[in-house]
Amino acid sequence: MLEVLRLGHRAGRDDRISTHVGLTARQWGADKVTYAGEYDSSMMESLENVIGRWGGSMGVEYEEEWYRHLKAFDGLKIHLTMYGESVGKKLPEIEEELDEDIMVVVGAEKVPRKVYTEVDYNIGVGHQPHSEIAALAVFLDRLRGLKNNFSGAEVEVEPSEQSKLTREK
Amino acid sequence: MLEVLRLGHRAGRDDRISTHVGLTARQWGADKVTYAGEYDSSMMESLENVIGRWGGSMGVEYEEEWYRHLKAFDGLKIHLTMYGESVGKKLPEIEEELDEDIMVVVGAEKVPRKVYTEVDYNIGVGHQPHSEIAALAVFLDRLRGLKNNFSGAEVEVEPSEQSKLTREK
Repeated sequence: MLEVLRLGHRAGRDDRISTHVGLTARQWGADKVTYAGEYDSSMMESLENVIGRWGGSMGVEYEEEWYRHLKAFDGLKIHLTMYGESVGKKLPEIEEELDEDIMVVVGAEKVPRKVYTEVDYNIGVGHQPHSEIAALAVFLDRLRGLKNNFSGAEVEVEPSEQSKLTREK
Repeated sequence: MLEVLRLGHRAGRDDRISTHVGLTARQWGADKVTYAGEYDSSMMESLENVIGRWGGSMGVEYEEEWYRHLKAFDGLKIHLTMYGESVGKKLPEIEEELDEDIMVVVGAEKVPRKVYTEVDYNIGVGHQPHSEIAALAVFLDRLRGLKNNFSGAEVEVEPSEQSKLTREK
Protein backbone atom coordinates (compact mmCIF):
# COMPACT_ATOMS: atom_id res chain seq x y z
CA MET A 1 0.00 0.00 0.00
CA LEU A 2 1.40 3.34 -1.05
CA GLU A 3 0.05 6.40 0.71
CA VAL A 4 0.94 10.00 -0.05
CA LEU A 5 0.50 12.40 2.85
CA ARG A 6 0.26 16.04 1.84
CA LEU A 7 0.88 18.34 4.80
CA GLY A 8 -0.16 21.91 5.41
CA HIS A 9 -2.79 22.49 2.74
CA ARG A 10 -4.15 26.04 2.72
CA ALA A 11 -7.55 26.38 1.05
CA GLY A 12 -7.48 28.84 -1.83
CA ARG A 13 -3.75 29.43 -1.91
CA ASP A 14 -2.78 25.77 -2.36
CA ASP A 15 -5.76 24.28 -4.15
CA ARG A 16 -4.12 23.77 -7.53
CA ILE A 17 -0.80 22.62 -6.11
CA SER A 18 -2.57 20.10 -3.86
CA THR A 19 -4.70 18.88 -6.76
CA HIS A 20 -1.51 18.34 -8.75
CA VAL A 21 -0.04 16.41 -5.81
CA GLY A 22 -3.11 14.17 -5.91
CA LEU A 23 -2.96 13.67 -9.69
CA THR A 24 0.73 12.84 -9.42
CA ALA A 25 0.15 10.38 -6.60
CA ARG A 26 -2.54 8.72 -8.70
CA GLN A 27 -0.45 8.51 -11.87
CA TRP A 28 2.47 6.92 -10.10
CA GLY A 29 0.29 4.36 -8.39
CA ALA A 30 -0.62 5.62 -4.92
CA ASP A 31 -3.47 3.78 -3.26
CA LYS A 32 -4.40 6.75 -1.14
CA VAL A 33 -3.70 10.44 -0.82
CA THR A 34 -4.28 12.02 2.56
CA TYR A 35 -4.54 15.77 2.95
CA ALA A 36 -3.72 17.62 6.14
CA GLY A 37 -3.98 21.30 6.96
CA GLU A 38 -7.18 23.12 6.09
CA TYR A 39 -10.13 20.99 5.08
CA ASP A 40 -10.96 21.74 1.45
CA SER A 41 -13.90 19.81 0.10
CA SER A 42 -13.88 21.39 -3.37
CA MET A 43 -10.22 20.51 -3.98
CA MET A 44 -10.83 16.95 -2.85
CA GLU A 45 -14.00 16.68 -4.94
CA SER A 46 -12.23 17.81 -8.08
CA LEU A 47 -9.74 15.01 -7.55
CA GLU A 48 -12.52 12.51 -6.89
CA ASN A 49 -14.20 13.58 -10.11
CA VAL A 50 -11.04 12.76 -12.06
CA ILE A 51 -10.88 9.36 -10.40
CA GLY A 52 -14.54 8.70 -11.18
CA ARG A 53 -14.10 9.45 -14.86
CA TRP A 54 -10.56 8.20 -15.49
CA GLY A 55 -10.60 5.17 -13.26
CA GLY A 56 -8.52 3.54 -10.61
CA SER A 57 -9.37 3.34 -6.98
CA MET A 58 -7.11 5.81 -5.19
CA GLY A 59 -8.67 6.96 -1.95
CA VAL A 60 -8.84 10.67 -1.14
CA GLU A 61 -8.96 11.45 2.54
CA TYR A 62 -8.60 14.27 5.00
CA GLU A 63 -6.83 13.89 8.32
CA GLU A 64 -7.07 16.62 10.92
CA GLU A 65 -4.79 14.75 13.33
CA TRP A 66 -2.07 14.37 10.77
CA TYR A 67 0.82 13.87 13.19
CA ARG A 68 -0.94 11.04 14.99
CA HIS A 69 -1.70 9.58 11.55
CA LEU A 70 1.96 9.82 10.54
CA LYS A 71 3.14 8.25 13.79
CA ALA A 72 0.63 5.42 13.59
CA PHE A 73 1.58 4.44 10.05
CA ASP A 74 3.10 0.99 10.18
CA GLY A 75 5.50 0.87 7.24
CA LEU A 76 8.36 2.78 5.65
CA LYS A 77 7.96 6.55 5.98
CA ILE A 78 9.80 8.84 3.57
CA HIS A 79 9.66 12.62 3.69
CA LEU A 80 10.70 14.46 0.55
CA THR A 81 12.61 17.64 1.34
CA MET A 82 15.39 19.60 -0.31
CA TYR A 83 17.34 19.30 2.96
CA GLY A 84 17.34 15.50 2.96
CA GLU A 85 19.88 13.02 1.73
CA SER A 86 20.33 12.59 -1.99
CA VAL A 87 17.76 10.37 -3.71
CA GLY A 88 20.47 8.97 -5.97
CA LYS A 89 22.54 7.91 -2.99
CA LYS A 90 19.75 6.53 -0.78
CA LEU A 91 17.42 4.88 -3.27
CA PRO A 92 19.22 1.49 -3.28
CA GLU A 93 18.96 1.38 0.51
CA ILE A 94 15.29 2.33 0.42
CA GLU A 95 14.62 -0.33 -2.19
CA GLU A 96 16.17 -2.93 0.08
CA GLU A 97 14.09 -1.86 3.04
CA LEU A 98 10.88 -1.57 1.10
CA ASP A 99 7.96 -2.60 3.14
CA GLU A 100 4.62 -3.53 1.70
CA ASP A 101 3.40 -0.27 3.13
CA ILE A 102 5.08 2.98 2.20
CA MET A 103 4.11 6.52 3.10
CA VAL A 104 5.59 9.40 1.15
CA VAL A 105 5.22 12.75 2.91
CA VAL A 106 5.30 16.06 1.05
CA GLY A 107 4.93 19.39 2.72
CA ALA A 108 3.83 22.87 1.96
CA GLU A 109 6.28 25.67 2.67
CA LYS A 110 7.01 25.03 6.34
CA VAL A 111 7.22 21.45 7.59
CA PRO A 112 7.48 21.04 11.38
CA ARG A 113 10.76 19.72 12.73
CA LYS A 114 9.05 16.67 14.27
CA VAL A 115 8.29 15.34 10.80
CA TYR A 116 12.01 15.11 10.07
CA THR A 117 12.62 12.96 13.12
CA GLU A 118 9.47 10.82 12.89
CA VAL A 119 10.09 9.49 9.37
CA ASP A 120 12.57 6.80 8.36
CA TYR A 121 14.13 8.85 5.59
CA ASN A 122 14.36 12.50 4.64
CA ILE A 123 15.15 12.46 0.95
CA GLY A 124 16.10 15.31 -1.33
CA VAL A 125 15.19 15.02 -4.98
CA GLY A 126 17.86 17.60 -5.58
CA HIS A 127 18.90 20.08 -2.93
CA GLN A 128 17.52 23.18 -4.53
CA PRO A 129 14.30 25.09 -3.91
CA HIS A 130 11.85 22.93 -5.72
CA SER A 131 8.34 21.82 -6.37
CA GLU A 132 6.91 19.14 -4.11
CA ILE A 133 5.01 17.94 -7.18
CA ALA A 134 8.25 17.44 -9.13
CA ALA A 135 9.91 15.78 -6.14
CA LEU A 136 7.00 13.38 -5.65
CA ALA A 137 6.78 12.52 -9.35
CA VAL A 138 10.48 11.85 -9.79
CA PHE A 139 10.83 9.94 -6.53
CA LEU A 140 7.94 7.63 -7.40
CA ASP A 141 9.08 7.36 -11.01
CA ARG A 142 12.52 6.19 -9.93
CA LEU A 143 11.10 3.88 -7.27
CA ARG A 144 8.19 2.32 -9.17
CA GLY A 145 7.51 3.92 -12.53
CA LEU A 146 4.20 4.97 -14.00
CA LYS A 147 1.00 3.10 -13.29
CA ASN A 148 -0.63 1.88 -16.49
CA ASN A 149 -3.92 0.35 -15.53
CA PHE A 150 -6.80 2.36 -14.20
CA SER A 151 -9.70 0.02 -13.81
CA GLY A 152 -13.26 1.20 -14.15
CA ALA A 153 -12.40 4.19 -16.35
CA GLU A 154 -15.20 5.79 -18.36
CA VAL A 155 -12.73 7.20 -20.83
CA GLU A 156 -9.15 6.68 -21.92
CA VAL A 157 -6.62 8.38 -24.16
CA GLU A 158 -5.68 6.87 -27.48
CA PRO A 159 -2.04 7.98 -27.65
CA SER A 160 -1.25 9.65 -30.94
CA GLU A 161 1.40 11.60 -32.79
CA GLN A 162 -0.47 14.84 -33.30
CA SER A 163 -4.04 14.51 -32.13
CA LYS A 164 -6.14 14.60 -29.00
CA LEU A 165 -7.99 11.30 -29.11
CA THR A 166 -10.03 9.72 -26.36
CA ARG A 167 -12.38 6.77 -26.37
CA GLU A 168 -15.35 6.22 -24.12
CA LYS A 169 -15.35 2.80 -22.57
CA MET B 1 20.69 24.60 -24.93
CA LEU B 2 17.55 23.44 -23.19
CA GLU B 3 14.60 25.79 -23.16
CA VAL B 4 11.29 25.23 -21.43
CA LEU B 5 8.36 27.09 -22.93
CA ARG B 6 5.41 27.49 -20.58
CA LEU B 7 2.25 28.38 -22.50
CA GLY B 8 -0.91 30.09 -21.39
CA HIS B 9 0.08 31.57 -18.04
CA ARG B 10 -2.79 33.35 -16.29
CA ALA B 11 -1.68 35.87 -13.67
CA GLY B 12 -3.09 35.08 -10.23
CA ARG B 13 -4.59 31.73 -11.07
CA ASP B 14 -1.39 30.13 -12.34
CA ASP B 15 1.33 31.95 -10.44
CA ARG B 16 2.35 29.11 -8.15
CA ILE B 17 2.08 26.44 -10.84
CA SER B 18 4.17 28.53 -13.23
CA THR B 19 6.74 29.19 -10.51
CA HIS B 20 6.96 25.44 -9.92
CA VAL B 21 7.43 24.92 -13.66
CA GLY B 22 10.35 27.33 -13.50
CA LEU B 23 11.90 25.71 -10.42
CA THR B 24 11.56 22.32 -12.08
CA ALA B 25 13.13 23.54 -15.31
CA ARG B 26 16.03 24.95 -13.27
CA GLN B 27 16.57 21.81 -11.20
CA TRP B 28 16.71 19.57 -14.23
CA GLY B 29 19.13 21.83 -16.04
CA ALA B 30 17.19 24.14 -18.35
CA ASP B 31 19.17 27.11 -19.63
CA LYS B 32 16.06 29.20 -20.08
CA VAL B 33 12.40 29.24 -19.20
CA THR B 34 10.11 31.29 -21.38
CA TYR B 35 6.63 32.24 -20.23
CA ALA B 36 3.77 32.99 -22.57
CA GLY B 37 0.23 34.07 -21.82
CA GLU B 38 -0.29 36.95 -19.43
CA TYR B 39 2.78 38.95 -18.47
CA ASP B 40 3.39 38.44 -14.75
CA SER B 41 6.38 40.34 -13.41
CA SER B 42 5.95 39.24 -9.79
CA MET B 43 5.94 35.54 -10.66
CA MET B 44 9.04 35.98 -12.81
CA GLU B 45 10.76 38.05 -10.15
CA SER B 46 10.17 35.41 -7.48
CA LEU B 47 11.91 32.91 -9.75
CA GLU B 48 14.75 35.33 -10.45
CA ASN B 49 15.21 35.81 -6.71
CA VAL B 50 15.67 32.07 -6.26
CA ILE B 51 18.24 32.03 -9.05
CA GLY B 52 20.07 34.98 -7.52
CA ARG B 53 20.36 33.29 -4.16
CA TRP B 54 20.71 29.63 -5.14
CA GLY B 55 22.83 30.07 -8.22
CA GLY B 56 22.94 28.90 -11.77
CA SER B 57 22.29 31.02 -14.77
CA MET B 58 18.88 30.01 -16.08
CA GLY B 59 17.28 32.83 -18.02
CA VAL B 60 13.70 33.85 -17.27
CA GLU B 61 11.92 35.47 -20.18
CA TYR B 62 8.51 36.49 -21.38
CA GLU B 63 7.37 36.07 -24.96
CA GLU B 64 4.17 37.69 -26.15
CA GLU B 65 4.54 36.24 -29.64
CA TRP B 66 4.91 32.73 -28.36
CA TYR B 67 3.84 30.92 -31.52
CA ARG B 68 6.37 32.79 -33.64
CA HIS B 69 8.95 31.96 -30.96
CA LEU B 70 8.02 28.27 -31.08
CA LYS B 71 8.16 28.18 -34.87
CA ALA B 72 11.48 29.99 -35.01
CA PHE B 73 13.18 27.61 -32.57
CA ASP B 74 15.87 25.74 -34.45
CA GLY B 75 16.19 22.43 -32.60
CA LEU B 76 14.15 19.51 -31.36
CA LYS B 77 10.72 20.56 -30.10
CA ILE B 78 8.85 18.32 -27.68
CA HIS B 79 5.39 19.06 -26.32
CA LEU B 80 4.36 17.22 -23.19
CA THR B 81 0.71 16.24 -23.27
CA MET B 82 -1.36 13.39 -21.91
CA TYR B 83 -2.60 12.80 -25.47
CA GLY B 84 0.86 12.21 -26.90
CA GLU B 85 2.81 9.06 -27.51
CA SER B 86 4.19 7.19 -24.54
CA VAL B 87 7.44 8.54 -23.14
CA GLY B 88 8.66 5.00 -22.47
CA LYS B 89 8.14 4.07 -26.11
CA LYS B 90 9.52 7.21 -27.73
CA LEU B 91 12.42 8.17 -25.47
CA PRO B 92 15.01 6.02 -27.27
CA GLU B 93 14.06 7.67 -30.58
CA ILE B 94 14.23 11.13 -29.03
CA GLU B 95 17.63 10.36 -27.54
CA GLU B 96 18.90 9.40 -30.98
CA GLU B 97 17.60 12.58 -32.54
CA LEU B 98 18.81 14.83 -29.75
CA ASP B 99 19.93 18.12 -31.06
CA GLU B 100 22.13 20.48 -29.16
CA ASP B 101 19.06 22.62 -28.82
CA ILE B 102 15.91 21.25 -27.27
CA MET B 103 12.67 23.00 -26.44
CA VAL B 104 10.21 21.35 -24.08
CA VAL B 105 6.73 22.86 -24.25
CA VAL B 106 4.24 22.57 -21.41
CA GLY B 107 0.79 24.06 -21.49
CA ALA B 108 -1.84 25.28 -19.21
CA GLU B 109 -5.27 23.71 -19.51
CA LYS B 110 -5.99 24.33 -23.18
CA VAL B 111 -3.17 24.09 -25.69
CA PRO B 112 -4.01 25.22 -29.25
CA ARG B 113 -4.08 22.56 -31.92
CA LYS B 114 -1.30 24.23 -33.90
CA VAL B 115 1.17 23.42 -31.12
CA TYR B 116 0.56 19.71 -31.69
CA THR B 117 1.45 19.98 -35.35
CA GLU B 118 4.34 22.44 -35.01
CA VAL B 119 6.44 20.35 -32.61
CA ASP B 120 8.52 17.28 -33.49
CA TYR B 121 7.04 15.14 -30.73
CA ASN B 122 3.93 15.12 -28.62
CA ILE B 123 4.85 13.01 -25.64
CA GLY B 124 2.67 11.69 -22.85
CA VAL B 125 4.27 11.11 -19.48
CA GLY B 126 1.37 8.83 -18.77
CA HIS B 127 -1.99 9.26 -20.48
CA GLN B 128 -3.96 10.38 -17.48
CA PRO B 129 -5.01 13.86 -16.34
CA HIS B 130 -1.80 15.08 -14.84
CA SER B 131 0.36 17.88 -13.66
CA GLU B 132 2.53 19.63 -16.21
CA ILE B 133 5.07 20.02 -13.40
CA ALA B 134 5.21 16.26 -12.85
CA ALA B 135 5.38 15.61 -16.59
CA LEU B 136 8.23 18.09 -17.05
CA ALA B 137 10.18 16.77 -14.07
CA VAL B 138 9.90 13.11 -15.05
CA PHE B 139 10.58 13.73 -18.73
CA LEU B 140 13.76 15.70 -17.97
CA ASP B 141 14.76 13.25 -15.25
CA ARG B 142 14.56 10.36 -17.68
CA LEU B 143 16.26 12.29 -20.45
CA ARG B 144 19.07 14.00 -18.52
CA GLY B 145 18.82 13.59 -14.75
CA LEU B 146 19.18 16.23 -12.06
CA LYS B 147 21.57 19.13 -12.44
CA ASN B 148 24.08 19.23 -9.61
CA ASN B 149 26.11 22.36 -10.06
CA PHE B 150 24.64 25.80 -9.60
CA SER B 151 27.47 28.26 -9.97
CA GLY B 152 27.46 31.55 -8.15
CA ALA B 153 25.14 30.40 -5.34
CA GLU B 154 25.07 32.44 -2.15
CA VAL B 155 23.82 29.44 -0.20
CA GLU B 156 23.65 25.69 -0.52
CA VAL B 157 22.07 22.79 1.34
CA GLU B 158 24.20 20.45 3.40
CA PRO B 159 22.23 17.22 2.87
CA SER B 160 21.49 15.52 6.17
CA GLU B 161 19.53 12.70 7.73
CA GLN B 162 17.23 14.70 9.95
CA SER B 163 18.16 18.36 9.86
CA LYS B 164 17.73 21.47 7.78
CA LEU B 165 21.27 22.62 7.18
CA THR B 166 22.46 25.28 4.79
CA ARG B 167 25.79 26.97 4.38
CA GLU B 168 26.42 30.46 3.09
CA LYS B 169 29.10 30.49 0.43
